[in-house]
Amino acid sequence: MPELRRDPVAGCWVIEASERARRPDDFGPVAAAAPRSEPCPFCEGSERLTPHEILAVRPNGGANGPGWRSRVVPNKFPALMVEGDLAKRGDGLYDIMNGVGAHEVIIETPRHELSLTGLSEDEVRDVLWLYKARLLDLRNDRRLQYGLVFKNVGERAGASMEHTHSQLIVTPIVPLRVQSEIDNCQQYFGYRGRCLLCDMVAQELSSGVRVVLDTPNFIAFDPFASRFPFETHVLPKRHLSHFEATDDGLLLELARCLRSSLLKIEKALDRPPYNYLIHTSPLNSKPLEHYHWHFEIIPRITRVAGFEWGTGFYINTVPPESAARYLREMQA
Amino acid sequence: MPELRRDPVAGCWVIEASERARRPDDFGPVAAAAPRSEPCPFCEGSERLTPHEILAVRPNGGANGPGWRSRVVPNKFPALMVEGDLAKRGDGLYDIMNGVGAHEVIIETPRHELSLTGLSEDEVRDVLWLYKARLLDLRNDRRLQYGLVFKNVGERAGASMEHTHSQLIVTPIVPLRVQSEIDNCQQYFGYRGRCLLCDMVAQELSSGVRVVLDTPNFIAFDPFASRFPFETHVLPKRHLSHFEATDDGLLLELARCLRSSLLKIEKALDRPPYNYLIHTSPLNSKPLEHYHWHFEIIPRITRVAGFEWGTGFYINTVPPESAARYLREMQA
Repeated sequence: MPELRRDPVAGCWVIEASERARRPDDFGPVAAAAPRSEPCPFCEGSERLTPHEILAVRPNGGANGPGWRSRVVPNKFPALMVEGDLAKRGDGLYDIMNGVGAHEVIIETPRHELSLTGLSEDEVRDVLWLYKARLLDLRNDRRLQYGLVFKNVGERAGASMEHTHSQLIVTPIVPLRVQSEIDNCQQYFGYRGRCLLCDMVAQELSSGVRVVLDTPNFIAFDPFASRFPFETHVLPKRHLSHFEATDDGLLLELARCLRSSLLKIEKALDRPPYNYLIHTSPLNSKPLEHYHWHFEIIPRITRVAGFEWGTGFYINTVPPESAARYLREMQA
Repeated sequence: MPELRRDPVAGCWVIEASERARRPDDFGPVAAAAPRSEPCPFCEGSERLTPHEILAVRPNGGANGPGWRSRVVPNKFPALMVEGDLAKRGDGLYDIMNGVGAHEVIIETPRHELSLTGLSEDEVRDVLWLYKARLLDLRNDRRLQYGLVFKNVGERAGASMEHTHSQLIVTPIVPLRVQSEIDNCQQYFGYRGRCLLCDMVAQELSSGVRVVLDTPNFIAFDPFASRFPFETHVLPKRHLSHFEATDDGLLLELARCLRSSLLKIEKALDRPPYNYLIHTSPLNSKPLEHYHWHFEIIPRITRVAGFEWGTGFYINTVPPESAARYLREMQA
């Protein structure tokens, strides 16, 4: 069972895979790239190579065999385990709990595409629907606090499998970075009586200089204080604290907005490695007036070095206004 | 003039190099590696290729020519500019100030070594003395709040120059990550009346399982909640809030402890890319009872992916107890 350990100085939690008896010799500079599986367990026809599926989009029904458009399976090498108690405990000044949670893989298509943008808008909508359905299901487990949907594309962005997929890690703690965003938004709400992200949407639409895409219900823009070149956020214009509360009727428009944003980034930067992730409200919280879910897309074209690690301060060499203008003009 | 912009959601500041008119076309997946200069401007005899030196260790005196053991020069491509006013201002809901600060390079040796560990203990002490002297000098500039000393080794750790060097970036803001550590330590002090890091040193020495090196005045250990495999911290056993308040008489022992820790990591992991950085108290603060300076050494043998970006939660696959045992036994 992995352990969750809290760093009392930084205040963050770390998943320590304490039972894996890997020898330190295994860790050379190139060990991070996982070996490629042959055949690919995410391709159609290889369903027996993954754990049993949890949910799938299957026009003709069935399970665990061919005939699907997208499917969710447990991660074969999970960072957190779904069984067991948290067993919160201390060790001197340190805090520990069992690594209870969920770690699932969303296989976005039976085809071995290199990116989500190779899919149709309908297929991307199905993927978003799977994110939503899994979050709605997992909120019933009262041990769990937070669900992070994320995607790694390219080895430099941390992808160990080439076949296009996303992941969902559900933790028994609200992560520090998310809690800190929620706290900042709550503070803003406290003196303004409005949602910070709603205000941001209004300011971005009004100035226009950082807008990448503007659809009836969604906006994609490069944030004023972008940490990374071409960082792009996608969010609903109308206030909504939980991603999983998105109306099914809006998922196709969201799929279009997300897919077009990714296509523009891929064209502009020649298919860069990237990550995206959804920041949303804690699973079990009631609808929040002060927090507003959003996608963060982070192209990984620069290195994060000692200064960024040490400070949480970032240096960005491409002004978001230039990046957004470039992305706006890019056909996608 | 670069701009400092605050992300109101995350609460962090970003240095936006807004005046550099780089075209987005310049940013392909490989653009992060800066071109190698030929000849290397950090080698002896190339002093005319750097800005005028600020400070140097020169047994025979002189300046800006050969004959030095280590030297500090302004960064030729600084992230922050030393001249000008902060001019704090707003733009709707956003906060901005001018990118005033300092960005210096500490060239650790005239020889083109690949790592600090190629230097003698005396030479490493000189480098530490330069860190100290620069921080002591820069605290006289009341516009500046915080000095971060850091080092990037290897392209994957963000190094753009091969010749061994460290950097110092001085910011007009206490960075979020440091402020958050200080706040956590202050909270601990509030209910315990003791320094968290002093207590941690005591617990680590008492259990011994995560200790890498134990010298009369310093300890190197792999933290209980290590975020990265073989992450190692080096700190004084006796309470001290500011690195630059370290007694000159202890710098040689610190140099030995730091150099040996790095050597052990280099041997264990076959010269991995790494970062180190010093977390210390804000330049202008009086001595703090609750915060305690420390080196953080981070081998960069794994990729940081979407989950880590999205949460500030880390997954570490090598328990610090295994890493520390391995490093302890490594001859260095």
